[in-house]
Amino acid sequence: MKVEEKVLAANQRFYQALETLDLDLMDAVWLHEDWVACVHPGWELLESWEEIRESWQRIFTNTRRMKVAVTNLSVRLLGSTAWVNCIEQVTSSFETGFSTAWVQATNIYVEQNGDWRLVHHHASPLPRDDEETIQ
Amino acid sequence: MKVEEKVLAANQRFYQALETLDLDLMDAVWLHEDWVACVHPGWELLESWEEIRESWQRIFTNTRRMKVAVTNLSVRLLGSTAWVNCIEQVTSSFETGFSTAWVQATNIYVEQNGDWRLVHHHASPLPRDDEETIQ
Repeated sequence: MKVEEKVLAANQRFYQALETLDLDLMDAVWLHEDWVACVHPGWELLESWEEIRESWQRIFTNTRRMKVAVTNLSVRLLGSTAWVNCIEQVTSSFETGFSTAWVQATNIYVEQNGDWRLVHHHASPLPRDDEETIQ
Repeated sequence: MKVEEKVLAANQRFYQALETLDLDLMDAVWLHEDWVACVHPGWELLESWEEIRESWQRIFTNTRRMKVAVTNLSVRLLGSTAWVNCIEQVTSSFETGFSTAWVQATNIYVEQNGDWRLVHHHASPLPRDDEETIQ
């Protein structure tokens, strides 16, 4: 498997964890360090795996189902660092309704013992005509 | 000068270019490759230096003055790659008024011949109580 493919496979596992609301898989995707960072759409930066894990736990608890379609993927590789750009189309259903959002994401991965682990996730809202929230 | 300091100096030059609306300085800050990428707040990703340069040119042409305060800086270094997280408080004045916006930014730099060049800028709007637009 080419290195780019390994990075894209790690990226796919991240979105699988998101879509299946699977905190154990999130555990396996991220590097567990106090310097890893995460920006959810419209949030300030969270720093440290502990804080980021807690945020996923809160998001997963408040979401009934999530569907994530990932497009416009590109990957850039430099030594033991790689970053992936992509667009996420996220449809979430909650207790009270559902929403569809378009998100631009930057995901930085680092290689450790042959594994590519997520160390930085920056997601920001994209304006789209077909964005909708029904409650 | 420590490597982290060199990266932070490059980051400072980027914000100086922004604040002084200086396209020549932007030229000197960014790596001129077709794979470099930029997300302005609320925009889709732009790819290639040519496209990114054109966007700065358009932004600078439409802005009379800009003031940028950068806070919450952190830098992460891995080999020839570094990424900086920070919050930008951007006050812009146009023909018709001015606006203040808070922005969360991820900036990725790569080292080439001792210089750290910007290869990825992802900026996204932050909700803040004191955000305002007066026109």
